[in-house]
Amino acid sequence: MGRSVHDRAGDVKAGPLAGYRVLELGHYIAAPFASRLLGDMGAEVIKVESPQGDPVRTWGAQHDGQSIWWSVHGRNKRCVTLNLKAPEAKGILAGLLRECDAIIENFRAGQLAKMGFGDEFFKSCNPSIVICHISGFGQTGPKSEAACFGVIGEALGGLRYLTNHAKGQSDLPPVRSGISIGDSIAGLYAALGVAASLASRERQGSKVIDVALTEAVLSLLEGTIPEYSKLGKIREPSGGRIPTAAPSNAFPASDGNWVIIAANSDHLFVRLCELMGQPGLAKDPRYVDNIQRCRNVDALEAAIAGWTRELDARSLEALLEKSDIPACRVYRAPEIVADEQYRARDMLLNVDDPIVGPVLHPAPVPRFADIPRRVRWPGPSIGQHNEEIYREALNLSPADFEALRKDGVV
Amino acid sequence: MGRSVHDRAGDVKAGPLAGYRVLELGHYIAAPFASRLLGDMGAEVIKVESPQGDPVRTWGAQHDGQSIWWSVHGRNKRCVTLNLKAPEAKGILAGLLRECDAIIENFRAGQLAKMGFGDEFFKSCNPSIVICHISGFGQTGPKSEAACFGVIGEALGGLRYLTNHAKGQSDLPPVRSGISIGDSIAGLYAALGVAASLASRERQGSKVIDVALTEAVLSLLEGTIPEYSKLGKIREPSGGRIPTAAPSNAFPASDGNWVIIAANSDHLFVRLCELMGQPGLAKDPRYVDNIQRCRNVDALEAAIAGWTRELDARSLEALLEKSDIPACRVYRAPEIVADEQYRARDMLLNVDDPIVGPVLHPAPVPRFADIPRRVRWPGPSIGQHNEEIYREALNLSPADFEALRKDGVV
Repeated sequence: MGRSVHDRAGDVKAGPLAGYRVLELGHYIAAPFASRLLGDMGAEVIKVESPQGDPVRTWGAQHDGQSIWWSVHGRNKRCVTLNLKAPEAKGILAGLLRECDAIIENFRAGQLAKMGFGDEFFKSCNPSIVICHISGFGQTGPKSEAACFGVIGEALGGLRYLTNHAKGQSDLPPVRSGISIGDSIAGLYAALGVAASLASRERQGSKVIDVALTEAVLSLLEGTIPEYSKLGKIREPSGGRIPTAAPSNAFPASDGNWVIIAANSDHLFVRLCELMGQPGLAKDPRYVDNIQRCRNVDALEAAIAGWTRELDARSLEALLEKSDIPACRVYRAPEIVADEQYRARDMLLNVDDPIVGPVLHPAPVPRFADIPRRVRWPGPSIGQHNEEIYREALNLSPADFEALRKDGVV
Repeated sequence: MGRSVHDRAGDVKAGPLAGYRVLELGHYIAAPFASRLLGDMGAEVIKVESPQGDPVRTWGAQHDGQSIWWSVHGRNKRCVTLNLKAPEAKGILAGLLRECDAIIENFRAGQLAKMGFGDEFFKSCNPSIVICHISGFGQTGPKSEAACFGVIGEALGGLRYLTNHAKGQSDLPPVRSGISIGDSIAGLYAALGVAASLASRERQGSKVIDVALTEAVLSLLEGTIPEYSKLGKIREPSGGRIPTAAPSNAFPASDGNWVIIAANSDHLFVRLCELMGQPGLAKDPRYVDNIQRCRNVDALEAAIAGWTRELDARSLEALLEKSDIPACRVYRAPEIVADEQYRARDMLLNVDDPIVGPVLHPAPVPRFADIPRRVRWPGPSIGQHNEEIYREALNLSPADFEALRKDGVV
């Protein structure tokens, strides 16, 4: 292994981070997602797991005892196991750190330091390593060491409250966005912090990055905080609507699908009324401009839904497209997989996973011109790269490696 | 202005991207958010607007005719105006491009090229510039030039379908997450692509980045696509619940607040039942383990809500914390602003905005150790930096600059 990124050619066609090495001491979602993003852009990722493996390896639907999601979540990484409590762990981790440009971890704040793996240890092994911590509340402050599930981070970050129907529309609780959005956003910020730190490492030295899930979510809330601080205005949920533009919502089709219609300008609304066969609606004083339409949005949406319920999604899409009204079906997995735009851009890649079999992956995002979208390999099995990595990085003989394995260190 | 990043010291305390210059040809949310993220990490951002200004300057609640959100959305940028249709625009833009390391734009795909500002133009002005396009559908493919609102990108990316109550629970349409989440995620990917490209520019040359809003959203969907491709399993919404863990949801307090309770392990559930004064529930065959609790989640949640409705949010929080059960209030703006953990980490910064007055900003994310969290300046007024930037970058005399202004070029 070459010690400096300049010694490593990397595979330019793999992306802008080719040649950089990232050590992941992660589990569950946020840190593994961050290193997946960096790996998707060409970085060489080494994931260090406990010998039991990352619990996410069994999350969700499975094939032959392995999570199908893992094929994506673990892709482009080399996976090694290490028992961090073994006395040999420190020397082994030091050997890996010397070969890497960045480390990303998402243990509870302070937990790695208690085990002897704090920032000082990382820096003593490799003074130029970029260190990225991800945690629920961040590395400092009175709550830093508290447990924080994703659902809690999303609620404290202000997103859960806003993901709900307007007051009076429903007694049901606010909804999750259906995925672990807080972890994903924290992972994006972590990858961004690492990439920015790598871009400046030679001029500024290395950085220590501290991503809090709560803060990552809060940073997306647009005007929510400044408006409250200035005017006392509390941002409220508005269901599928945009509070300041109507009509814009999802409407029911006769076949059970939802169709988004965004006819929230005067000329688009006129076209929609004509399409609905009710041109008079556009002149109705209740709907004559956007302010009136927002004021009378319940009745307006009921009128539109009365029309959409009579047609199936395919017919609605065709009619709305012909009238040049921004609209689309609300996609589920089957519609995504069938979409010609995604196909034309290689956004869905056929991957042959040795455990799961042929499986479709979403491609690396963003796309880079002149770099083919591809998956180098799907999520490996537990410890699949133990021998390769440890013998290479630590210069172990086959017998030395076998001893580590037998002692349960790796 | 120094032409290479190596000629510019930058302010190291401003963050890892100090010394890098980013040109923003953006409007609305995605591109301006991407350059805000880079500016928050220290990059010098020059925002080029039409003389009418970015429409987002008037979005949401206002003070003295200016959006309060703009104070955050435009912060740390220098703002210049330029009429891209004026014959002088090409020369002026060329002068700016020569001084920058990256350009970020979010016009409809192909639109800038039609005006003479395509990738070839950018590269001819500055061969080492990183080019980042953000659009609804991406720069290629049959739908690339179609209009794409954020709500459409979120629906095609598969997020909107999942942000809903479970089938049978509600007839209301799926909800938005209450913010322009698709634009924000696209902006995060754009900033990540730019930072990664800057990190490799000297070894690999510059890159052209193509962020599609639809794809940025789709990339977060965890196992949705591989599971469908392998098993035909269509991921369905589950409201505030996690489909595979119970109880985990938001529950109503007596004062109208929502409280998240995540007691979805056997020992946490036992503690919750004791706290509720119903220890027998934990032994009820319907709730005895996670599988049973998920199967009988309607009745389980009703029992918990029966308890939470009797107590206000503050009491619930205190009781749950004492029992060490992961829980929290669902924060609105007032709770965020009062939160001691955010305050301890300087996540909320007092900024004195010359137009809006004193206003609270969410701090730059992520936090970097040894770099104080701060806002260099709030969102500037339209064309505030015209004279400073144009005279510096283009070496104009005061009379030359005045002529451009009078002719409506800037």
